[in-house]
Amino acid sequence: MRAPRLALVPGEPAGVGPELCVRLAQRPRDHALTAFGDPDTLRDAAARLGLPLELTDPRDPGTTPGTLALQEVRNARAASPGRADPANARAVIDALLDAAAGCLRGEFDGLVTGPVHKATINEGGIAYTGTTELLADQAGREVVMMLANDIVRVALATTHLPLRDVADAITAERLARRLDVLHQALRQDFGIADPVIAVLGLNPHAGEAGHLGQEEIEVIEPLLAERREAGMRLVGPLPADTAFLPGKLRSFDAVLAMYHDQGLPVLKYSGFEQAVNITLGLPYPRVAVDHGTALDLAGRGIADPSSLFAAADTCARMVRGRAAVRGRS
Amino acid sequence: MRAPRLALVPGEPAGVGPELCVRLAQRPRDHALTAFGDPDTLRDAAARLGLPLELTDPRDPGTTPGTLALQEVRNARAASPGRADPANARAVIDALLDAAAGCLRGEFDGLVTGPVHKATINEGGIAYTGTTELLADQAGREVVMMLANDIVRVALATTHLPLRDVADAITAERLARRLDVLHQALRQDFGIADPVIAVLGLNPHAGEAGHLGQEEIEVIEPLLAERREAGMRLVGPLPADTAFLPGKLRSFDAVLAMYHDQGLPVLKYSGFEQAVNITLGLPYPRVAVDHGTALDLAGRGIADPSSLFAAADTCARMVRGRAAVRGRS
Repeated sequence: MRAPRLALVPGEPAGVGPELCVRLAQRPRDHALTAFGDPDTLRDAAARLGLPLELTDPRDPGTTPGTLALQEVRNARAASPGRADPANARAVIDALLDAAAGCLRGEFDGLVTGPVHKATINEGGIAYTGTTELLADQAGREVVMMLANDIVRVALATTHLPLRDVADAITAERLARRLDVLHQALRQDFGIADPVIAVLGLNPHAGEAGHLGQEEIEVIEPLLAERREAGMRLVGPLPADTAFLPGKLRSFDAVLAMYHDQGLPVLKYSGFEQAVNITLGLPYPRVAVDHGTALDLAGRGIADPSSLFAAADTCARMVRGRAAVRGRS
Repeated sequence: MRAPRLALVPGEPAGVGPELCVRLAQRPRDHALTAFGDPDTLRDAAARLGLPLELTDPRDPGTTPGTLALQEVRNARAASPGRADPANARAVIDALLDAAAGCLRGEFDGLVTGPVHKATINEGGIAYTGTTELLADQAGREVVMMLANDIVRVALATTHLPLRDVADAITAERLARRLDVLHQALRQDFGIADPVIAVLGLNPHAGEAGHLGQEEIEVIEPLLAERREAGMRLVGPLPADTAFLPGKLRSFDAVLAMYHDQGLPVLKYSGFEQAVNITLGLPYPRVAVDHGTALDLAGRGIADPSSLFAAADTCARMVRGRAAVRGRS
C-alpha cells in the first residue's frame, strides 16, 4: 500500500505540542504527515530548538525529514510558550475538527493529536470535556478509550466519572458495547484474528463470589457468558490486583478495566513515556499522546517526544492493519 | 540487641504454607523462629521436599538452619495437600490466635503468617473475614493494611469493600486514623524519622478541581492541610494513574491509596514474588505473605517461597527498627 496519510494536530499552542511536532517532523518516516495549526507557532518552536522546518503544501504531504505539510489554522494571538491563552481556544478546537473532518472524508487515513489544555478551552467559552468526546460527537460514534504501551493495552469501560458513580454505570448494555468495539478494533486495527480479552471485575477480588459485591454475578459474568457463546475469547472477571502480573499479562491482547484508576496505574508505571491514548470505534484510527500540555516545560526544548513518536507509529501501524484486513476480506 | 523472636504460623495445612515454612527453616537466619502448627503436617511437607527438619522445644527457639521450634497446635484430621478440610479450621485459627497472644504477652517480638483459605474457615463454622481483622479484634486495635515490596509501600484507606461503598467510607475521621497509624508505623517500625506520604485522590485525576468528584475538596484536602499543620510531610491528593510513575515513587516513603484496586495493581505488577502484607497499628509487627493458599500447587514442591522469606526478613527488620527507635527515645 501507499504510505499512510496522517493528520497531525499539535494541540495547545503554548504547550509542548508544537515543539514535539517539530521533533516528529525530523524523523525518517514511513507515513505522510499533514499538520493542522499555526505556521508561526511551528516556526517559532523550530527556531527555539535550532531545528530545520520547511512547511509544505497541505495537498502534497511528504515523508522527507525536516519537512511538514501544513494546513493553516491560525491562532487569534501569537502563542507564548507556557502561557495558555483562551483567545486561541477556537483555533485549537478548529484544528482538531478540521483534521478529523478530513479523516471522515477519506483525505487522511488516521489522526494523531497532541495535548489540549481543557481549562483554557473552557475559559475560551467552548464546552469541551476532552478530545475523545469531541471526536466521538463529530463522528456520531460511541467510542472506547484505550491506552497502550509495549507492555499492555488497557481499554476502559468508564472513563472520567466520579468514583461514586462508577458502579451504577457498569450496565450490561454499556459493557456489551465497549466489549464489541474493543473486540472489533483488535481484529480490524491490530490484525489480531482471534483476540484474548481479559475483563476485570468491578469489586476487589472480582467480588469474591458475591462477598464483596454483586455486579460480577449480576452483570459481568452473564455478559461474558453470552459473548463467549458468540465466539469471543474472554478471560474473567478477574481481580484487578493480580490480572496485571507480568506472567498473566503476556497472554492477553487487551485488558478491559471497569474504571480509570483500576486500569491506568500499571499502564503508566510500566511505560509512561511510550504510552499512547487510542480512540477505538471512530471511522478512522486516532492516537493521542498520553501526557498533558506540560506548560512548565514548553519552549525549553526538554520535553520528551517519545509519546508523540509512539502515537504516530501506532497510528500508521493501525492504518496498515486496517488495509491488510480489508485486503483479506 | 538479641535476635528477634518471631512467631510463625503456616496457615492452611492443605495449602503451600507448610512447605514454605520448611523452606524458610533451611535458610541461615538472624532471627529465632517458633512455628505454631501441626508437627505431622510440617514433617510430611519436609519429607515431600526431601529436606531436613528438626522440630525443637518451643521455649528455646534457635537460628540453626534445618531446625524449627514448634508450639504444637494439632489438626483435627491429617492434612492432605490440595484438599482444604473444614475440620481443621479450628486448628488454623487457634494457631493464629495463640501465636498472636504470645506476641501480645511479649514472648515473641513479631508475627509472620502464611496463607489462610477463607472459605474453608467459614465452612468450618468460624466467622472469619481475614487474618488482619482477626488480629485487630484480638488486640482491640484499629489497624492499617500495607502491602510492600522493594519498589513501593502501599497502605489502604479502605480494604475489602464493594466498590459502590467506597466513596461513603472515605470520611475525614477514617482517613485521619489511617494516616496517623501509617505515619507512626513508618517512624517506629521502619525508622524513617520524617516520612513523606503520598495520598491519592478518590476520583480520577484526583477530582480535577471538582469536575470529577467533590471528595478531594470536601474531605481529603482539608485533612491533609490539618495534618501538614501538625508537621506531617504529605503529598497530594494525587491522581492515582500518575502517582506511581517510577520517578515520582522514589520520593515517597509510602502511598496511601483510597481503595484496594487503586493501590494494589502496581504493587503486584512491580514485584509480586517479594511482596508482603503488613499489618500496622498492632502492638507487635505482623507480616504476612501476599499470596493465597495455592491449593493447586500444594505438595508439589514448586511453590515460590520468596514472599514468606521476605515476610520473615521484613518482620525481623521491623522488630529491630522498633528497638532502635525505643533505644533512642
